[in-house]
Amino acid sequence: MPKYAILAEGAFDYILSKTGNAIIRYRPEEVVCVVDSKSTAKTAAEVLGIGDDIPVVASLQDALQYDPNAVLIGTAPPGGQLPQSWREMILMAIENRLDVVAGLHSFLSDDIEFNDLASKKGVHIWDLRKPPDPLPFSKGSWQTRKTPVLLTVGSDCDTGKMTAAWELKMELELRGVKAAFVGTGQTGILLGGFGVPVDAVVSDFVAGTIEAEIDKAAPGHDVVIVEGQGSVNHMAYSGVTVGLLHGCMPEMLLMCHEPDRKLDTFGYPMTPFHLVLDIYLKLLEPFRPTELVGISLMTPLFDEKTAVERVKEFEEKFQVPTTDPVRNDMTTIAENVISLIR
Amino acid sequence: MPKYAILAEGAFDYILSKTGNAIIRYRPEEVVCVVDSKSTAKTAAEVLGIGDDIPVVASLQDALQYDPNAVLIGTAPPGGQLPQSWREMILMAIENRLDVVAGLHSFLSDDIEFNDLASKKGVHIWDLRKPPDPLPFSKGSWQTRKTPVLLTVGSDCDTGKMTAAWELKMELELRGVKAAFVGTGQTGILLGGFGVPVDAVVSDFVAGTIEAEIDKAAPGHDVVIVEGQGSVNHMAYSGVTVGLLHGCMPEMLLMCHEPDRKLDTFGYPMTPFHLVLDIYLKLLEPFRPTELVGISLMTPLFDEKTAVERVKEFEEKFQVPTTDPVRNDMTTIAENVISLIR
Repeated sequence: MPKYAILAEGAFDYILSKTGNAIIRYRPEEVVCVVDSKSTAKTAAEVLGIGDDIPVVASLQDALQYDPNAVLIGTAPPGGQLPQSWREMILMAIENRLDVVAGLHSFLSDDIEFNDLASKKGVHIWDLRKPPDPLPFSKGSWQTRKTPVLLTVGSDCDTGKMTAAWELKMELELRGVKAAFVGTGQTGILLGGFGVPVDAVVSDFVAGTIEAEIDKAAPGHDVVIVEGQGSVNHMAYSGVTVGLLHGCMPEMLLMCHEPDRKLDTFGYPMTPFHLVLDIYLKLLEPFRPTELVGISLMTPLFDEKTAVERVKEFEEKFQVPTTDPVRNDMTTIAENVISLIR
Repeated sequence: MPKYAILAEGAFDYILSKTGNAIIRYRPEEVVCVVDSKSTAKTAAEVLGIGDDIPVVASLQDALQYDPNAVLIGTAPPGGQLPQSWREMILMAIENRLDVVAGLHSFLSDDIEFNDLASKKGVHIWDLRKPPDPLPFSKGSWQTRKTPVLLTVGSDCDTGKMTAAWELKMELELRGVKAAFVGTGQTGILLGGFGVPVDAVVSDFVAGTIEAEIDKAAPGHDVVIVEGQGSVNHMAYSGVTVGLLHGCMPEMLLMCHEPDRKLDTFGYPMTPFHLVLDIYLKLLEPFRPTELVGISLMTPLFDEKTAVERVKEFEEKFQVPTTDPVRNDMTTIAENVISLIR
């Protein structure tokens, strides 16, 4: 079991340390401490509201007393380039035989100095955002696939697709369903243990890469849940979304949405929910009948009454189980999935 | 002006030497000879039916007598890897101060030996498939763009999107319209002189890359014509297509199609034409009204009577100018475009 010291120097908060936070939320037992000198002597719970008494320490040196076996770089350095202070921290981690897990755009395993020292110390460097090499071509294996696939899709970026996919996996497992999880972003890949960072894959290979990953994940499982990316109506990222959609050819879609959001993450007016859903279904129509199995709403900004109202509205309008998986749970959607796959 | 010796050893035919053939078709004055020992002593016209008396020679050594100033690698080597005989040919070309233009997946300009010799000889190596570095992020500049954009789209791969775009550019120029052409595949990039190989771009950057290229091409032009790629209903390449579509945010679409095609290039049943068109328009609906300005049909396998019938059928059904630009011309579509942009 990994025992992470999460490196989040200057950036341990609700927004910036997203990957680290997901591990703190879902696998607190794997986190021994967080390094961020600006929050020293606090606990994770005091900073994030989750993670109980996981301590925040000032330096990697201080972190070593908690006996980590790995460091997780839970945030990107300011400016994109790796600052000298981070280099020293990573070298110190390897020197102390800690594995290094990173979600950076530039790959630590391509760095000669890191790589040489890691070989010498028998340490593994895992770049979460590094695509497979060579990239697999699409083969259309969904046409003979036995295991059904569920993809989370959204009306925009940041609508809880990773969270919905992960919560559904856990809810299904509670009910004895063997659910494989295929991550497609750094956090999902880290949580699930494997997957592919589709947005870092050359566009010609996106469908083939996710298809190959599903084929690897499926054996021994009742269903494969794939973390979605972007949105079909997002002017910058729709290509990633559609490559992923057709690479999955999902039997089931779980739509993720933040009610009342006016502008998308690019500042462009949101497309009405039913039109976005219609585009997803239209794109799949030539290939297979795909069922909308549920709607996952993000309601943290609403009071309880409004949240309940919104869930009810969507449930009545689209006639599928609807929930906020963080505020409430995935019970009804999990039950709907089970009724379809059994 | 370039004077190409086209290298197509063992592969000079209608299918394999696609990039070289496009230059022979549209710019025969830029081609001094073709190298392919299997067709030595024939002319291009004898092999392809186009290119008149451009000679085919047995070796690069023989090609030198025609005084080329560049070699164009018009085909991919068998197996993907560069065979030793090709290395020697490329080195000989550089040694003789010929520029090298290549559409290979592996980049000649990244090869230390080629690069060193090219610097020494003052020779330029142009890898048509090499994406820009760094890749530009999407900015949404279409929202303030002044120059209208036309994108060719298709019902499948290989439906004549490059040809339709190029023929339309030429037809518009005959009528005094300043039409910029943005290539997105190796042949289009070579013909147009610039562009971006979108299928070789990391998926997160496809929209941003084409957006930046349009913004570079637009100044001083009345319209920008962008070569389309793949198809929105192609299981392997739809991600490229949609990234390109939303990166362009075209005011105009020109649909390309081969009538009566039963299976797509992946062997999957073709989606009915009107459904594919509907998906393109649905994807653009949240952003702007986009007009279908014409339909370009590929009819080389039909007799004249059937070809005329098919053109008429599509024209009546969709109420837009329809043509086969190779069998006939682009007159009616060009006139429709002019009526919209003036």
